[in-house]
Amino acid sequence: MIKPTIAFVGIGRMGANMARRLKSQGFAVTAVHDARRESAEKLAVEIGATACDSLAAVTAAAQIIITVVTDDAAQVGLFAGTGDSLLLGARGRTFINCATLSPSTHLEVEKRAEKAGAHSLEACMASSINQALAGTLYLMCGGKKAVFDSVRDVLIPLSDEGKLLRYIGATGQAAQVKALVNMVMNINTAGLAEGLGLAAALGLDLKTVMEVFSQTGANSRVLATDGEDMVNRDHACFFSAAHAAKDSGIALKLAEEKGLDLLLAAATKAQYDKMIALGLGELDKSGIAELTFPGRSPK
Amino acid sequence: MIKPTIAFVGIGRMGANMARRLKSQGFAVTAVHDARRESAEKLAVEIGATACDSLAAVTAAAQIIITVVTDDAAQVGLFAGTGDSLLLGARGRTFINCATLSPSTHLEVEKRAEKAGAHSLEACMASSINQALAGTLYLMCGGKKAVFDSVRDVLIPLSDEGKLLRYIGATGQAAQVKALVNMVMNINTAGLAEGLGLAAALGLDLKTVMEVFSQTGANSRVLATDGEDMVNRDHACFFSAAHAAKDSGIALKLAEEKGLDLLLAAATKAQYDKMIALGLGELDKSGIAELTFPGRSPK
Repeated sequence: MIKPTIAFVGIGRMGANMARRLKSQGFAVTAVHDARRESAEKLAVEIGATACDSLAAVTAAAQIIITVVTDDAAQVGLFAGTGDSLLLGARGRTFINCATLSPSTHLEVEKRAEKAGAHSLEACMASSINQALAGTLYLMCGGKKAVFDSVRDVLIPLSDEGKLLRYIGATGQAAQVKALVNMVMNINTAGLAEGLGLAAALGLDLKTVMEVFSQTGANSRVLATDGEDMVNRDHACFFSAAHAAKDSGIALKLAEEKGLDLLLAAATKAQYDKMIALGLGELDKSGIAELTFPGRSPK
Repeated sequence: MIKPTIAFVGIGRMGANMARRLKSQGFAVTAVHDARRESAEKLAVEIGATACDSLAAVTAAAQIIITVVTDDAAQVGLFAGTGDSLLLGARGRTFINCATLSPSTHLEVEKRAEKAGAHSLEACMASSINQALAGTLYLMCGGKKAVFDSVRDVLIPLSDEGKLLRYIGATGQAAQVKALVNMVMNINTAGLAEGLGLAAALGLDLKTVMEVFSQTGANSRVLATDGEDMVNRDHACFFSAAHAAKDSGIALKLAEEKGLDLLLAAATKAQYDKMIALGLGELDKSGIAELTFPGRSPK
């Protein structure tokens, strides 16, 4: 089997590691593009790709283009109807879109891609930077089943040999599930920060408290990933507070459309919005503990 | 070693199963007492104990008296200074108090017990009915270390041969940790109910959503214990919504005393209070999903 050529648009922490992973698995990563030209050039040198200035050049360089951008506006901007665009010369290409976006954005991108004779798939990632490099991303895909099947060979080496690869359903549904995952994760994170913050205020031994949490109904994935970081104020960024606010916001918008009033999701978004307002938006999501531990909050 | 004699005050779901467990491990459970006289008589027949009408008779009947009552007022009521009281003839007795109470209540009970020449230990349980019967309770103890050591042989067969037995610190500290556990557990439960409720509103496959949650940052202990029950509306009571409201309330009071403003804990308590107001307080805590799934809320 001849492996398809791959290009990447958006080579932040996630995109760059995914490119490295596919390169290490024998794929030709032919082109990379990023709004930060220097980042693109650096990665291009590292993995033997071309750093493209234009989006059209990216499309010309590969059969499959993986996009990992920050938000809805950036994603839609890649698929512009006029000027530079990934859609130029896109016939037969497949776009795999990995950012956490509004479901409606995935539908819009699919529509535009199909109009240009190309294919589109959403592949939402529920994992972080280390998993991208190791090829152990939890990947939830939405789109036409035939498109999913056609790029399965590219997704498998990114998702623990396919063990963490899921076809969720129609375009937009994977983004919905991803928004739910992050909404619940953010709530659990905000709740953990309250629990540990109160424990600190009471003068309890936080190691004991975390051990008890881990053995009881208070246990959660975020306790394992973020508990110690909250205590140690180690907020090096894996998943930023700003991203947390954005993703909770996507979920809240879906809830609003359905007439649901989600109190905890709203309270959680308010906390992450407060972090942004305080200039803490680029801390890791664990940084929410800066708002709940006594004596920490910058007010 | 001669095993000490044991009595139980408060034989609801937890207390009755703890009594059965100790009986099965060769302890003489000599007396039981409950405000519901019939329950006491039924259990007394089952385990060969005496159903006592008066609290003083309970104290007379055993060396160690385990109390498992519902709230602060009930607990303090057992240790009254006048009239019928566990304190009558209590010299040399040890009281082990297992309810989830305000830390200050444990301090008050300890003070009164010591004045009567007795000992007191708090043993907060972070487990449920099945664990009580199986003797696999997670037990967090607060009080004088010497008192803890003196009743260790009674606590070990209740806590998976002591593997789940923890000495937390001074009187009141175990109750603080327990309040934190339940506060965080309740937040995670309320958040899960929002996530699954929104998933239902979006028409997603809830089995898939729960599988994705379990593999990602949304995972939690309550997903495993309450997720399916929320979907299936199976709210048979292990831990009631009313108890959840009470325990979150204890934690919020501690936070208030420390000047902390805990948004998620407050939103969670509001939801459980709403359940009580709607007449749903005796549903299991999973019943909070009745407030978040579309078309379920009784308004």
